[in-house]
Amino acid sequence: MKKESINVGVIGFGTVGVGTVELLEKNREWIACRIGVPINVVKVVDLDWKSEREYEITSEQKSTNIDDVLQNDDIDIVIEAIGGVGVAKTVITRALEAEKSVVTPNKELIAKYGAELMQLADQKKIDLMFEGAVGGGIPIIRPMKTSLAGDNVQKIVGIVNGTTNYILTAMSEEGADFQDVLKIAQEKGYAEADPTADVEGFDATYKLAILSSIAFSTHINVDDIYHEGITKITATEIKYAKKLGYEIKLLAIGEVKGDSLQLRVHPTFVPLSHPLASVNGVFNAIFIESDPVGNLMFYGRGAGSGPTGSALVGDVIDAARNILNNASGRTPCTCNTTRDILSISELESKYYIRTKVKDVVGVLGKMADIFGANNVNLTSVFQPDQITDGNTAEIVWLTHQVKEENLQNALKELSSIDSVLEISSCIRALE
Amino acid sequence: MKKESINVGVIGFGTVGVGTVELLEKNREWIACRIGVPINVVKVVDLDWKSEREYEITSEQKSTNIDDVLQNDDIDIVIEAIGGVGVAKTVITRALEAEKSVVTPNKELIAKYGAELMQLADQKKIDLMFEGAVGGGIPIIRPMKTSLAGDNVQKIVGIVNGTTNYILTAMSEEGADFQDVLKIAQEKGYAEADPTADVEGFDATYKLAILSSIAFSTHINVDDIYHEGITKITATEIKYAKKLGYEIKLLAIGEVKGDSLQLRVHPTFVPLSHPLASVNGVFNAIFIESDPVGNLMFYGRGAGSGPTGSALVGDVIDAARNILNNASGRTPCTCNTTRDILSISELESKYYIRTKVKDVVGVLGKMADIFGANNVNLTSVFQPDQITDGNTAEIVWLTHQVKEENLQNALKELSSIDSVLEISSCIRALE
Repeated sequence: MKKESINVGVIGFGTVGVGTVELLEKNREWIACRIGVPINVVKVVDLDWKSEREYEITSEQKSTNIDDVLQNDDIDIVIEAIGGVGVAKTVITRALEAEKSVVTPNKELIAKYGAELMQLADQKKIDLMFEGAVGGGIPIIRPMKTSLAGDNVQKIVGIVNGTTNYILTAMSEEGADFQDVLKIAQEKGYAEADPTADVEGFDATYKLAILSSIAFSTHINVDDIYHEGITKITATEIKYAKKLGYEIKLLAIGEVKGDSLQLRVHPTFVPLSHPLASVNGVFNAIFIESDPVGNLMFYGRGAGSGPTGSALVGDVIDAARNILNNASGRTPCTCNTTRDILSISELESKYYIRTKVKDVVGVLGKMADIFGANNVNLTSVFQPDQITDGNTAEIVWLTHQVKEENLQNALKELSSIDSVLEISSCIRALE
Repeated sequence: MKKESINVGVIGFGTVGVGTVELLEKNREWIACRIGVPINVVKVVDLDWKSEREYEITSEQKSTNIDDVLQNDDIDIVIEAIGGVGVAKTVITRALEAEKSVVTPNKELIAKYGAELMQLADQKKIDLMFEGAVGGGIPIIRPMKTSLAGDNVQKIVGIVNGTTNYILTAMSEEGADFQDVLKIAQEKGYAEADPTADVEGFDATYKLAILSSIAFSTHINVDDIYHEGITKITATEIKYAKKLGYEIKLLAIGEVKGDSLQLRVHPTFVPLSHPLASVNGVFNAIFIESDPVGNLMFYGRGAGSGPTGSALVGDVIDAARNILNNASGRTPCTCNTTRDILSISELESKYYIRTKVKDVVGVLGKMADIFGANNVNLTSVFQPDQITDGNTAEIVWLTHQVKEENLQNALKELSSIDSVLEISSCIRALE
């Protein structure tokens, strides 16, 4: 029997839930026109119905009991908009077990438990979609699973966290320091009261795990991804970066190295000529190198109720089209290969290093010798003119593509000599 | 009965056909892993089997008879890689009538006959896919039909022709003139011997017709799109553009204006701060303004056997997944609204105007009066210092957002006064 509507249940009515329900209802006719039947939001579950929202629903739609969605035979698609890995996981598991399609933007959950949840979805031949988990409203998961399904993705380089990109952009534009900009970002709502997940790189790590799983057809363990946040980036670093022709961005990088993968999240010197260098503010962008399509970039707003709502509604429509065609589960998990994850010490990269040294004759040569002895080839050395007193000097080094292990050995050795007062910073640079 | 393989027939074995077959065969195992069964290239039809190709197929695969594909019951998917609107249209029509899924990158054919072909595909509940028709390997058609299906696209601004973008980039970087760069582009294979379709904007017009049909859910008649090519762009224009903070790009622009649409292809002043300004060489990019997702941009290689092959294989995999799930035709044509197309005279835009005038007292004021009398508000006027002799001067004008009709009236009036020797150029600028 042909279905006359697709019924949706939403669990969690915060920013994302509100954005999604509003869009489904506002564009109801438009969407019905596109898929042939209307999509109804039948139930919305939340424990708190006292807080005011920007979009109001009917009292009939409201519920405080997840069973009104999960045990409701009329509901075809469940939208999980709770977040976190506790209740959300239970909700999704129960929904899939009840053979309801699931749509979620929950990056932490998908990064950590995507493998087992996709396995359950595949067993039940039902859809589990999560376009909103990476890049907010940017279509990236679906294009990788469909349009690029015949391609061989070699490398992903993403600006996937809006908070840190907002902070780094503001630092770059205003010459301000991290803590000052963080405060403004928190006031504007671009950073959480506890900003750890964003500024320490956890959020970007989850997103890289998801992107890499799809691009490289293998399950990624989040803990295998090396990550560094942006808390140590100073106004000085950004100033020197610019002088050298770079912007500093927090990048999530996944790449194929022989049969293995190298996965990492860290602040990175990005050459101004690279398309990612001009991705500013809360915008996200994912740059892909793939054979044979070449270089691709997807750019857009990485967060917010509008963009994330758009991604969720796109998933709902896709899941609805599958339901209407008895084709749920038509794009199953494709993580069917196993690949080793290389340690960060195996990385080959260019590096920027800032050092504080005693301003004595021969120090530069001595340091250069140590770099050389550790197989760290230098491309340039420069001495900024802001020497604070007569006794100390700052020296900035740029290396060729060298092995991380060798670089770390060199830095260790440098730290041990008397005339080197401080390794002030060491930041990887994009080729 | 579960199918054990998906069989493909290819018609046309030129650049695109070769790229597609090579990718299907090279990544055969990989693709089989992703969709569950292998995809076999059963037959490839071409009239010329004497020319050497970069990729060789078996003699069993080769044929000169399209019926070996169209009347072959084993073939599930037909790839049309002939081009043009003659035989290609017959091939696609016959394939759809035989209920074979069709994949094509043929922009001219889809722009001109997409409506009737999609109608036939929908009747037969079969797939007609054409991701490769716009933006080469950039996933753009499918994301718009799926990920953005719940969104309300307000505006599309695209660099969709690699040849003209290569020419304009080279002109910008080298300060060279159009004809000189065209010649180099032809030598490098970036421009055809007869470059008309590209440099006069026809190719971009086809692509805008396709993008707009999908974005705005309405059939677009190619002839309703205003278009201008780049043949009149000189090194001088590009030099002045830069001085004013712009790059000149051939843009394809579609936008919603009330219940109507404004559709146009023309060289455009693009502010350097706009993401499209730094899309250089043969790269394409499509910038979308949509509610609620906000601004999106899709960037990549717009042509070539690799990128186009990637797009076609993505389509083949999508069509194959539909076949394996008995869900062919699951994303039908959604052009179910009717919208008026506004005439270019209705356009509101900023304009750059270069004029050559007699170097006499009062000419600037007189001209400014004429602009004013026609409701053309000016933002700036500047006089480049290269006056060729003592008698003539160049004056460059930038307007606010004004109506095209008013601007054209002003230019007409200006042409009629004695002291204005020439309206050297008039180029629209992006907001």
